[in-house]
Parts: sequence; structure tokens; C-alpha cells
Amino acid sequence: MSKEQDTSKLWGGRFSEPTDSFVQRFTASVNFDQRMAAEDIAGSLAHAQMLCSVGVLSAPELQQIQEGLATVQREIDEGSFQWSVELEDVHMNIEARLTELIGVTGKKLHTGRSRNDQVATDIRLFLRSAIDRIASELTRLQAGTITLAAANADTIMPGFTHLQTAQPVSFGHHLLAWNEMLERDYGRLMDCRARMNQSPLGAAALAGTTYPIDRAQTAAALGFDKPTENSLDSVSDRDFAIEFCSFAALLLTHLSRMSEELVVWASAQFNFIELPDRFCTGSSIMPQKKNPDVPELVRGKVGRVNGHLVALLTLMKSQPLAYNKDNQEDKEPLFDTVDTVLDCLRAFGDMLPAIKPRREQMREAARSGFSTATDLADYLVGLGLPFRDAHEVVGKAVAHGVATGMDLAEMELATLQGFCADIGDDVFEVLTLEGSIGARDHLGGTAPNQVAAAAQRAQQRLAERQ
Amino acid sequence: MSKEQDTSKLWGGRFSEPTDSFVQRFTASVNFDQRMAAEDIAGSLAHAQMLCSVGVLSAPELQQIQEGLATVQREIDEGSFQWSVELEDVHMNIEARLTELIGVTGKKLHTGRSRNDQVATDIRLFLRSAIDRIASELTRLQAGTITLAAANADTIMPGFTHLQTAQPVSFGHHLLAWNEMLERDYGRLMDCRARMNQSPLGAAALAGTTYPIDRAQTAAALGFDKPTENSLDSVSDRDFAIEFCSFAALLLTHLSRMSEELVVWASAQFNFIELPDRFCTGSSIMPQKKNPDVPELVRGKVGRVNGHLVALLTLMKSQPLAYNKDNQEDKEPLFDTVDTVLDCLRAFGDMLPAIKPRREQMREAARSGFSTATDLADYLVGLGLPFRDAHEVVGKAVAHGVATGMDLAEMELATLQGFCADIGDDVFEVLTLEGSIGARDHLGGTAPNQVAAAAQRAQQRLAERQ
Amino acid sequence: MSKEQDTSKLWGGRFSEPTDSFVQRFTASVNFDQRMAAEDIAGSLAHAQMLCSVGVLSAPELQQIQEGLATVQREIDEGSFQWSVELEDVHMNIEARLTELIGVTGKKLHTGRSRNDQVATDIRLFLRSAIDRIASELTRLQAGTITLAAANADTIMPGFTHLQTAQPVSFGHHLLAWNEMLERDYGRLMDCRARMNQSPLGAAALAGTTYPIDRAQTAAALGFDKPTENSLDSVSDRDFAIEFCSFAALLLTHLSRMSEELVVWASAQFNFIELPDRFCTGSSIMPQKKNPDVPELVRGKVGRVNGHLVALLTLMKSQPLAYNKDNQEDKEPLFDTVDTVLDCLRAFGDMLPAIKPRREQMREAARSGFSTATDLADYLVGLGLPFRDAHEVVGKAVAHGVATGMDLAEMELATLQGFCADIGDDVFEVLTLEGSIGARDHLGGTAPNQVAAAAQRAQQRLAERQ
Amino acid sequence: MSKEQDTSKLWGGRFSEPTDSFVQRFTASVNFDQRMAAEDIAGSLAHAQMLCSVGVLSAPELQQIQEGLATVQREIDEGSFQWSVELEDVHMNIEARLTELIGVTGKKLHTGRSRNDQVATDIRLFLRSAIDRIASELTRLQAGTITLAAANADTIMPGFTHLQTAQPVSFGHHLLAWNEMLERDYGRLMDCRARMNQSPLGAAALAGTTYPIDRAQTAAALGFDKPTENSLDSVSDRDFAIEFCSFAALLLTHLSRMSEELVVWASAQFNFIELPDRFCTGSSIMPQKKNPDVPELVRGKVGRVNGHLVALLTLMKSQPLAYNKDNQEDKEPLFDTVDTVLDCLRAFGDMLPAIKPRREQMREAARSGFSTATDLADYLVGLGLPFRDAHEVVGKAVAHGVATGMDLAEMELATLQGFCADIGDDVFEVLTLEGSIGARDHLGGTAPNQVAAAAQRAQQRLAERQ
Repeated sequence: MSKEQDTSKLWGGRFSEPTDSFVQRFTASVNFDQRMAAEDIAGSLAHAQMLCSVGVLSAPELQQIQEGLATVQREIDEGSFQWSVELEDVHMNIEARLTELIGVTGKKLHTGRSRNDQVATDIRLFLRSAIDRIASELTRLQAGTITLAAANADTIMPGFTHLQTAQPVSFGHHLLAWNEMLERDYGRLMDCRARMNQSPLGAAALAGTTYPIDRAQTAAALGFDKPTENSLDSVSDRDFAIEFCSFAALLLTHLSRMSEELVVWASAQFNFIELPDRFCTGSSIMPQKKNPDVPELVRGKVGRVNGHLVALLTLMKSQPLAYNKDNQEDKEPLFDTVDTVLDCLRAFGDMLPAIKPRREQMREAARSGFSTATDLADYLVGLGLPFRDAHEVVGKAVAHGVATGMDLAEMELATLQGFCADIGDDVFEVLTLEGSIGARDHLGGTAPNQVAAAAQRAQQRLAERQ
Repeated sequence: MSKEQDTSKLWGGRFSEPTDSFVQRFTASVNFDQRMAAEDIAGSLAHAQMLCSVGVLSAPELQQIQEGLATVQREIDEGSFQWSVELEDVHMNIEARLTELIGVTGKKLHTGRSRNDQVATDIRLFLRSAIDRIASELTRLQAGTITLAAANADTIMPGFTHLQTAQPVSFGHHLLAWNEMLERDYGRLMDCRARMNQSPLGAAALAGTTYPIDRAQTAAALGFDKPTENSLDSVSDRDFAIEFCSFAALLLTHLSRMSEELVVWASAQFNFIELPDRFCTGSSIMPQKKNPDVPELVRGKVGRVNGHLVALLTLMKSQPLAYNKDNQEDKEPLFDTVDTVLDCLRAFGDMLPAIKPRREQMREAARSGFSTATDLADYLVGLGLPFRDAHEVVGKAVAHGVATGMDLAEMELATLQGFCADIGDDVFEVLTLEGSIGARDHLGGTAPNQVAAAAQRAQQRLAERQ
Repeated sequence: MSKEQDTSKLWGGRFSEPTDSFVQRFTASVNFDQRMAAEDIAGSLAHAQMLCSVGVLSAPELQQIQEGLATVQREIDEGSFQWSVELEDVHMNIEARLTELIGVTGKKLHTGRSRNDQVATDIRLFLRSAIDRIASELTRLQAGTITLAAANADTIMPGFTHLQTAQPVSFGHHLLAWNEMLERDYGRLMDCRARMNQSPLGAAALAGTTYPIDRAQTAAALGFDKPTENSLDSVSDRDFAIEFCSFAALLLTHLSRMSEELVVWASAQFNFIELPDRFCTGSSIMPQKKNPDVPELVRGKVGRVNGHLVALLTLMKSQPLAYNKDNQEDKEPLFDTVDTVLDCLRAFGDMLPAIKPRREQMREAARSGFSTATDLADYLVGLGLPFRDAHEVVGKAVAHGVATGMDLAEMELATLQGFCADIGDDVFEVLTLEGSIGARDHLGGTAPNQVAAAAQRAQQRLAERQ
Repeated sequence: MSKEQDTSKLWGGRFSEPTDSFVQRFTASVNFDQRMAAEDIAGSLAHAQMLCSVGVLSAPELQQIQEGLATVQREIDEGSFQWSVELEDVHMNIEARLTELIGVTGKKLHTGRSRNDQVATDIRLFLRSAIDRIASELTRLQAGTITLAAANADTIMPGFTHLQTAQPVSFGHHLLAWNEMLERDYGRLMDCRARMNQSPLGAAALAGTTYPIDRAQTAAALGFDKPTENSLDSVSDRDFAIEFCSFAALLLTHLSRMSEELVVWASAQFNFIELPDRFCTGSSIMPQKKNPDVPELVRGKVGRVNGHLVALLTLMKSQPLAYNKDNQEDKEPLFDTVDTVLDCLRAFGDMLPAIKPRREQMREAARSGFSTATDLADYLVGLGLPFRDAHEVVGKAVAHGVATGMDLAEMELATLQGFCADIGDDVFEVLTLEGSIGARDHLGGTAPNQVAAAAQRAQQRLAERQ
């Protein structure tokens, strides 16, 4: 297959010298936009079909184009397609090959469209399909998280604020907090999908076209909800890419928070969880090492995604309408964000359900550190003290505990009564871990029955997605 | 009014030395979070009412608290309230003053809640109200844009790609492209509002509370759609701030693009528009200067908003649950983003309808620069040439025009026929500006009737917002 | 003191309507740039002196201006100066007041300069002084770090990679790693200072001035190394602000890493350090809490500073020369970065020397976790095994240890010989903590004598700064 | 060549199940870090030589390793080297192949080092070489800029502020403003090089090594200025990557500003310059288009580079020491930044000297727009008016000119005297373009003789670089 044409053949009538060869390579996008070949062909098929419907192409011409594009697709699938930097981008490469295959009819395909609306269409098709795969991986991760949560509704661990022991919580409750983050991510993803699923095809270069095109037909054929409203906007808009990257930055932020906790929990000092060996790697020099590589790497990848978001926002800043060459820079950050999101979701989707909580260590950590001090204060309020005074009393009891190395539940009743005479021996009930978590028994609270119910509701929401 | 209490009174039982005075100032947030005083009081009122409903407070206690908080609000409104850095934040300042005013009952207000869920509630109330004001300003700006567009459906200007003359377009069409950007911004803002309008109150420190609280009641009283699902998530979540800043970054990106065009159009070389003097300023040294300060400043403000988005994403990266002091850093970026968005929308909302297009200069610019070359190519396709060949023919005609300083419409018929013998004298019709824009007559195209219809649809969408 | 003038008096000859009052507020900078009043006055004094030297002002005129500016400075210091938004910025406010005070001569001060070079001068003076204060705080923090390091050259803790125990290290060595980061920050700060310390005064609006000014004289008077080379660049350049924020972003990144470690070490699970109560705060609800607020807040502040860097980079992206109103947005991010850096350095400079390592807990943590596995591998290499094979042998011994709950040093010699028959009883020496760290005895290694020497070299470098 | 080994052979003694195959791909870096193969081999050669010097390797062993690595390098150069994802990274791939080639001695190469110090060494070597190539391209671009400036010292164009005509300037002066930006970039690049050129080799995993290594020897062999000071810092430090990306972000910001001006100047409305056809491309639909793709694309690439800077800053935020898997994410942003910088410099280095100024259009634009109004004000000051009063007088004359469509130089003397009676007919001299620019005759001013001298100084600075 020889490529006699080059791109300047496609627009060069007005030019007096060929493009500089370095510039050709520098400005070409085919190395990365060939990834949208399937979408480009789908768009061309819808466009050709419509051109035929409105009488611009004859039925035999349409058939030629359909067969030609089928051949092109096959060549690409087989790896025999010869991509050429001289032909700049995926669009020109495919069109040039089509013309090579079917002759002059190939040159008619570009009637009533431009690369500006063509690329806008391709990239939306690409992103929509990526969103659908991401939605599915995200749902899988959420399902795994919820299942693990349901199984650990009454596994007790210390809840932390400031990484200091705060109050005992259910491990399942903690996992459901993660699920809430992911649930919002899913909502943002769906909002992004709904907003972007409109067809720019027909905007042509920037102003529409003089051909009697039917934009509703191509929109429907490509699964778009409707055609876009304004041709200038259609070729200059990159909101969808930015909105998607905003979604991704928040999702990865969430995964980075989960990762941080996994790494901390997997440390010898916390020792709250065990990560299966298959998600860890070792060291080339230290024979004892088993490193939580997966969460660490995911944590690092939030940088990459935040960076792509900044790249796209910077890119679009103060660009005049309509299309500028700058916009070619939208693809690589977007593609890499899609890949990163999919990989991280897959890694977490596999790993999370395989995490083994070390229940004994979690419980032991919750038992110490005065984690039920708030319960004691609440107990005192029950005896009639204003909360602020109860807080003060308990603060002094804790100071005593720190000095003597005793937790509250280990003190004698008499000792406790030294801080507040009204304390009775029913106090030891509220100082137990079970008593503490069980008492937070309201919507959103950490009581095991609430956690179990919350897990069920969460599962229900997943089930309703389909 | 003397402040005898300080914050360490509120949590200091366990501490053996007072907070370092620089640290007190460094960690205090009252200088900026006092801005949420009204929201804090509203939250306290709803909380107190609920505590009374469930029997934790008596009716007289509730009344005391209500009267006390009314006094506090009045003192704040009058400017007589004494804010104290020693009391750390808005919450402690108000509670301490309340206790000063009503005595021991004031100390009962904090029963069943924590500053962690309190601040999460306040900031959501603050943001929701900001969103509603922003929605209103955004709608005003869109209304002004659409009105100007409708009045300029047949004002012709050059459409640009690569800042090079591309094809003639309607100035109204260009304005409607701006409106499409803003329409998507509105959609994102509403999505953000819907997702954040849930009540975290009742999450307490992180695990919920042992009191028999009614979260649905406080949620309803504060206008939230429902309570949040998970207490840990409720106190650690800052998604709403990030999602809002993502909205703002895209909105400001759009305003920066509009600004760039206004600045370029206001240059002596383009001279497409006139900005009223009241939106411009002069120079301290150059007496002739009239500078488009407003669009320039708005263009600059995209930096500020992008920066705040990055600040918040960086802030949340890899934070373990639940609350950490880092989170205090969420407020200043959020507040400044709200202010910036409101100011920029107000400035644009005032300025945009007052822009005067210089119709003659726009038209003249569209007339030159071979802006109807595509129309000639389409004409040739009508004669039977494949589009690619037509493109080549016109390219050569343009090269001839560049060399001889003649636009296509100025060439002799014979000259044109030199490039393609089949050209007839009906060609001059398609080479006119009116012919060119009128022919792009489909949904989203620049034909004046399409622009007028699009303006009407846009106006309709605004009308349906209420 | 009444302000009859307003800014439009200063440039309004060409304008037909006054500035819109909202626009006036929106575009004014006096609310934040009044912070540069002292620098503005210093610049004016140097400029006036020079104008007198070259004969543009008479000696009595110069004296009037000097006295008038002294009065202005006094009014500002006393708080009696009336700042006016109508007068836009610090420059116009001061000049207007000067003219009020000394009459017509005040109007001559602006001869041969413009606000464009004036603000460029002011901001460089401001930043230079900020840099000098920062350098001093940074040096203080480094001194405290090195002192603590020297005192802990032989305090043993586990060194971590992947937050998993890797090898024993000296706590002093760890602290010196922090000092190395700060040392590079200092170098970047000095490079930034050297590059920015040039005088833009004399660039006037953008092209220089027709007056016979002496730029070398004003540069010298203001302590600049020399005048800048190009007038257009002088008024459009904001590199210094960006370079400073790049420095700050890296410094805060370092402080965030140190903070993360302090927070983790202060957790009950690690329990490696004690932070004095005066650097911590409590909880409004949980009486037992003592939270490491200072490192947490500093960790959060890296977001703010990264955000400002992005703000400035976005601001300058694709701005045409020379001055544009956008540039007014440079000041707030820069000022806030300066304040943040100074506060964080002060907080760390106070806190760091007061940290108390819990030597026993550190040592105990180092003792477990197979931290000397690499030493065993090195020992086997000494017996003639290739390193890779030694690694494999030790890996198996560790797996045995994990299974049986024994550390390497706790195994019987016979057990160890089961993995490699050549092991002798001298092996237990290399498995001690002291043996392990002492053996890493080369430049940059963790052997206590190396750490002590490194601390001395570090101290020496600080001493040479003056 | 078959790869029987896999990475788990290299660290797997302690592991009970193989790495998950997706995790293996997800965590592997060989796809991008194989780019550092030459640096990795160079580092290994220096390390092996040193091991031999200190007696850890025998001379024959060293020779085996040297020959083996030469073979590996040759296989890589020829493309016959089989990279394997199972072997994780460039280091393990090369070491495994070496051992395949030379047997057991290959396993000894890793004695006294770790992948942690190995990768830190490789990446610094890679970056240093990239910096040297960038320095050379940057110098070439500056040389071209200065040459064009020198040739246009007396080419007059309008100088802009706020994109409004401000004062006439020399086109050469404008180009030298660009050169000043680039000069600062060069300075930052050299500072970055100096700071990063230290050898981390010998830091081993994190704590140094028990072998009697000679870090000064390897540092010298690899061209480093000296060994780094601290082993923990050496393996955790990524400052050099961030500092380099900070340099790159500012450089690209500068190129984006130059690009913006080129694009605006190339518009039909400005028409100040002609870009040779070989740096432009056309449109697939609009036959007349000639688009300034190169500056547009470069303008867009600032987004990419800003994004990478943010990625790296986010990556390092709050990472505890020493090495974490997150750090693997440093390479792709750094590599892409290097490539982007080199490409953009090459494109500008080729294009800039080929730009043709359209002198007539520039001059005509400068002539209109009251660009000499400041000169008139200065003239009035020469007559004795205070500058502020002169400014007011000229403002009125300009308002008259706007109303009557006359520039200042076109007004009758009598008209001018209507604004100030003292004006004489020598005024017309100061109102000429040549008079205006010639009068700004001081260091940094736009007078042609100053521009010529500045160009010479700039050239001199370049000459002194090597």
C-alpha cells in the first residue's frame, strides 16, 4: 500500500512551499488520535448515510463508501493499515486510504462537514464509550466495598480524627464512608455523560454548511440525544473533556484517601489489615519487604489526573472562538485520564474485596486511647450536667488516666467518682466498645444495625442503576 | 462585653500548658469563618429546636437559647460583637457569648453535636445561598447576551478559526455561542447544588451521637433535601467545595474566552466594538488611552479560580478519614471563589448589553479575506466536482487573488472560469456575504432565521428556570 | 482630610462619562496594594532625588516632595491616612494626598515615570524584603533541625520505605534528610533574589521616557544590583512572582512531608514522638483528644501555595506585551504566599526543636520487623554468595520468621544454618541495631559518626550564610 | 533470547503467591523507564568499577560485567533486546539479561546498591543530558531573536498596553523584550543543573550500605560535582524534577506570550508579520486558509507543561520518607516535559528568524491612534506645566481628535494652541514617530541606538556562555 497523497494535497492549492518536515511531525496528531479510528469511521458512516438520505450522495456511492470504510476498519484491526504522519491526523489518513480504495467517490465523503466538527464528534463518541466502561468498573468497586462493609458491620476499630483515636466505629461504617464518596463520583460521571451526549456533526468548519444536511438523523444514528445548538460553540467547546477530568480528579482524590488509609493500616505499627501477596511487591535489596504497591501507586496517580485537569483548563484559557490549533492538545490528557481511571478502578476493584481486616488488632487499638471518653461525657449529661461541664470533668479523668497509664474502663468506680460523685456503676456499660458504637443508633450513625441497613440501601442504589 | 472564657476552657481539661500564642493565631479561623455566623446561628436554632422535640432540652431552655442567639445575631449585625481569636472559630465565639448571655443553658446547646458536623452544616448552607445568588446573576448575564444576539441576528462579521478569517457569520450567532457555554455552566451549577444539599448535622464528631436525635427534622428545618448517609463521610467530605470550584473554573474559563475576544475586538486594528467609557479606565501617563479594563481583569481572574481549585484538590489528596485540621484550609479558597464569580458575573452582566458593535467595520472585515471561498467550493460541488477537487480549484483561485490583491467576488467571470470552465455568472450570488450566511440554514447554522429561532429557544429555556 | 480628587481627574481628559461605580470598586486595587505603601514612597523618594540630580526638579521642589512624603508616611503609620477606592491604587492615593499637602509640585513627581514601572518597582522591593525575612526564618528552622539531629545521632528508629520497616536508621539522620530539603529551598530562594533584584524604574509606561533620567542612580538608591535591560519587558515581566511561588510550592511540599511524618509519628500506633501541649489543641466534644494541629495545618497549606503558583502561571499564559490589567491579579497570590511561608516557617521553627522523641518506642519498633534482613544478606555475601542468591536465602528465613512470629535475631543459630550452612555465630553481631547502623559508615550513610559529622557540616554551611 | 527469570525471582523468597498479572502490568515501569537504559548502564559501569577498586569485585569479574553490559547496550541499540513487563523496570531487565549472558557474576553487580539509589542516579543523568540539549536549543533561539532584533532596531511599530496603542516602539526593542524573558529562563535552567548535579549512588535502599564503597569515585566517574549528603534524602528527593518543570512552565509561558503576539500579528486585521508557508497549514474545507499552526500549538503546550508541574507537586505532597511507590509516577511527566520543551524550542528556533515584518503596516498602525500623546504631554512639561496638568490638556486634545477623526500630528497649530497657548510649531517634531522613539534614549529605552547597543550586549552574553 503506497501513500502517494499527502495532506498538502488536501489543502495545498494556496500554498507556495511544502510544510517543513519537522513542523509536519510537530503538528501531526496521528500518533495519538488514531486511537479514535473506530469512532471516526462510525461518524463517517452516519454522515454518508445522511448525505444519501438528503440526495447529496447516490445509493451506489453510499455503498462504495460503506464497503471502503469496512475495508479500512479491517486493515486497522489487522494492523496492516499504514498510518502516515504526512497525512496529519486520523481523519485524513482514513479519507486518503478510502479514496485510494474506491476512487473519486471517496473525495465526496467530506461534503458538508469539516475536520472541526468531525473531531468534535469523534472525541465525544470516544469519551462516551469510555464513560460507560468506567461506570461499570466503578459499580464493580462499589459492590465489592459494600459487600465487605456488610460483612464487617460489627467489626470494631478506632475511628480517627487528626489520626488520633477519637471514638470506636464499625469497620463496615468506615467502608461505607468510602462508598459514599464513590457514589457522588458516579453521579458526577452520569451528569457529565448527559451533558456531553449531543452531536456536533453538521457544525462544519464553524458556521454550518450550505448542504441540506439532516443533523437530527446523524445525531440519532450515533446515539446522541440531540444535535448541539450552535455551530461556533460546537467546534470550539471542550467543556466535556474538562468536566470529565474534574470528575476524574475527584475520584482519584477519593482513591488517594482510601490508599493512604490502606498504606497506614498495612504498616507494622497499625497492623489493621493484611493485603494479599499478589497485590504487593518486594525489594531488590531488602529480603523482608512486602510493599503495598497498588495503593501507593494509585495514590500517586492523583497527581497525574490533577495535572491533566490543569493542562486542559490552561489550554482553554482565553482562546478566541472558534477552532484553534491549540485544541489539538486536548486529546493526550483526556486519553491518559481515561486509561488511568480505568486502571485504578480495576486495581481497586480487584484488591478491595481481598483485604483482610485483623479484627483483634483493630479492637485492641479501639480499646485503648480513651476512645469512649465522649460516652462518659454523655453519661454525665444524662445525670444532669451541661455538656460543657461534663466535657471538663472527663478531660480531668483522662489527664489522670494518661498520668497513671490507665484507660477509663480500667479505673475503679471510686476513682471515677472522685471526678464526679454521681457516677454509678452502670457507667462501665457505656464505657465498653459495644456499648459505645451501639448507642450511636440513628441514620448515618455507626451502630451495627444502622451500618447493616445502610449497606442494604447502598446495594439497592447499585441495583437500580441498570 | 468582656471575654473571660477562652477556648481552652472548652476543651482544656486534659492539657497541662496553654496554647502558644502564635499557634493560637496561626490555627484560629475566626478571622475568615465569622462570615458564616448567620448560617451557624441558623444551624444552632434548628439543632436546639430538635433537641427540644426529642426531650433533651426543655421548652424554657429552648426559648432561652432562641432569645440568646437572637441577641448574638443582633450584636453581629450591629458590629458590636467582639470576635476573639482565643475562641478559635465562629462556633466557639458564638457559643461562648451565648453562655455569657443566658448562663448554664448555653452550655447545653452543644449536646449531641460537634464542631465537625457543625462546620460541615454551616459551609453547605453558606454555599447553597451563594449558588442561588450566582444562578440569578448568571441568568441575568445570559438574558443580556441573548437579547443582544437577537438584535444582531443579521449583523455580519468574519468568523475566525486560528484568528484567520474563515467564513462570514452572524454576530448574533457568535453571541449565542457564548450563551451555550453559559448554559452548560448553569447546568453544572444546578447539579452541584442538588448533590450538596444534604444535611450532615447529627454526624457529630465522626460516629454519630448517643442522643436520640432526629436528623430528618433538622434537615427539613434547614431546607436540606435529606440527611447524609454516613457520619464519617459527613465530617470529612469536601466534595461540594471542589465541585463548586470546578464549576467556577469552567465558568471563568468561558468568561476569559469572551474577554479575550472583547479585548481583541476593541483594539484599533479590529475595531469591531465600542465599550462604553464607564467600563474603561485611562492611563496615568498616556493621555489618549482608553483601556478595556473590565474584560482584561476578568480574563486575569481565571487564574485565581483555577488556583483555588488546585488548592482544594491538593488539600484533600491522601487525607485519611475523618476530620483533620488541614480541612480548615477549605474556606478561604471557597469564599474567594464565590466572591470572584459574583463580581465577574455582575461586571459582565452590566457590560455586555452595553457593547456597541461597529457594523460597518465588521462587515468590511468579513468582505475581505476570501471568506466566501468555501461557498465557491460548494458551488463547484453543485456543478459535479468531488469536494476535494473543488477545494483544490478554489485554493488556486485564492492564490491568484493573494497575488493580485483581489477578493473572489472582485474577479472577472472569465478569470474565475480560468480555474473551472463551468462557472456561470450565478456564482456571484454565492460569493456575497448575505448569500453565504443565508445558505447555512439548518439547526445550529448561522443563517439569520436560524439565529433568530435559536435566540428564541434560548430565551425560552431561561424562562423555564423559575 | 477630604478627598476631592478622584482618579478620573488623573486620566480623565479624554473620557465622556465617569467610571461606573461598581466597576470602580471591581477594578480598584487599593484594598490590597496599600500594603506596598512604604515601598511606593521609597521608590518616589529615589525617583524625585534623581529628577533633581538631572535638573528636572529644583532643590526646593525636591525638599517639598520629601517633606510631603514624610507626612504621608506618618499618616499611614498612624492610621489616619484616608484610603480611597476612587483613587484606584496605592500610587494614586499617595500622589493625590501629596498634591493636597504640597500643591502643584506634587503634580511634578510623576514626570518621567508611569504606574507601570512604579508598580513593578514597588513589588520587587516588597518581595526582596519578604525574601530576606524568609531567609532568616528558614535559617532559624534549619538551625533547630540540625541541633536536634546532632543530639540524636545515635537514637535508633526504623527507617521506612513504603511505610514498611526497611532498615534501622538514626533519628538524627532522618532529621538531616529534612535539612537537606530545606538547604535546597534556601538555594532556590537566593537564586530568585539575585535574579529579581534589578530596577525596572525608568521603563515608564512601556518604552522609556523622554526625560534625561539616570536609571543607574535610582537603581543604586533602592539597593538594586542594576537597572533592567528592556523597558517593555520591565513592565510586563512577572517572572519573579512565579519563581518565588515555585520556591514556595517546593518549600511547602517539604514541610507537608515533614508534617505527614510528625502526624503519623504522633499517632497512638506509632507513638514515636511527643508534641508539647502548647502546639496542640483539643476537641469540643471528645475530652481525651490532643490533636497535632500545627503540622496538620501546615500540611494543608501546601494546597494554598500550589494554588497560587497555578494562579500566576494561568494569569500570564498568552498575555501579549506590554502591560495588561490582568496583571493586577499578581499581588494577592504573591502576598498570601509570602504570609503563608512566613507563618509556616515560624510555626515549624518554634515547634521542631521542642519535639521529644520517644527513644524506647522507636528502638522497639526498629527491633522488630526484620529490619536487619539486609545485613544478613550482606553477611552472606561476605561468605561468598552472590548478592541475588543471598537475598533469596534471607527471604526464606524471613518467611519462616513471619510464620513463627520470630525476628531474625531471635532465631537459633541452627535454624539460621538451615537456610545457609555456612552461617557462624558472629552473625548475631550484624543482626543488632547498633551493628546495622554502625556498619553504614560512609559519606551520607546512617552510622552515628557520619551523622554527627554531617550535622557539623550542615551547621558550618549555615554559619557561612552571613 | 528467552526470559525465564521474572522479577519475583529477584525478591520473592518471602512471598507465598505470585503477583497478580494485572497488578504486574499496572505497577511495571519498563514501558517508559527503558528510555533511561543508557544511563542505567553508565551507572552500573561506574558502580562496578568502584566495587573493583574497593575489592568487592575482582578484576576478571569487572571485565565480565563490562563486556556483558556492552552486549546489552548493543542489543538495545539494535532493537533486539527483549523488554519484559515481568521484570518490572529497566534496572531488573538489564540485570537479568546480564546474568543470562555472564552467569553468576551478574548477580554480584547489585552489591552495595539498591534500585532506589539506582533510579535516582539514572534520572539525574537523564535530566542532565536533557538540560544540556535544551540549553543549546535555547541559545539558538535567542541568537535568532537577537539577530532579527538587531536588523530591526529602527523598524517602528505601535507599542501596546491593554492591546491599545500606547507609544511607538522599535520592533527590535520588542524582540529584545522576548530575549530578556529567555535569558532569565536560561539562568533558571543553569541553576537547576547546578543544584541537581550530585550523585545519589551509594544511598542504597535508604540508609547507605555496609560495603566499603567510594561514593566520590562513582560521582566523579559519572560527571557529578559531588556525592549527595544524606542517604534518606537521596532516595526520596524529587526536587530536581519539580524545579526543572518549574523552569519549563515559565519558559512555555513565555513562548505562549510570544505565540499569542505572533497569532494576533498574523491576523488580517493586524497584518504586522508574514509567516512563511512552511510553518503554516491549511484547512480541509476552507480553501483560502493559511493558519499559524506552530505558534498556536506552542501556545497550547503551556497547558501540558503546567499540568506536569502540578502532577509532580501533587505527587510529592505529604509523602513520608524515604521511597514510596508513588514516586514511580515522576518519570512520565518529566520525560514529556523534556520532549515538549525541546520540540517547542526547535520549532521556534527555526521559525522565528524566518518571520517577515510588514514594515509599512506596522508604521501605519503606529502613526494613528494618538501614539505620541505622551510626547505632547512631555513637551508641555518642558514649557513649564506640571505633568498632571499637561496630561489633562493632552487628554482634551485627544478627545477632540477622536471626535473629528484627526490624529495629533494632523491638527493645525492653532487648534493645538486652543488647548495650550504656549505651544509652538516645534511641537510637530516631537509628534513624529522618529522623534518619539528617538527621544527615549536611555538604557532600556526604545531609541534605535539603545536597541542596537542592547542587541550587542545580548549577543555578547550568549558568546560568553561557552
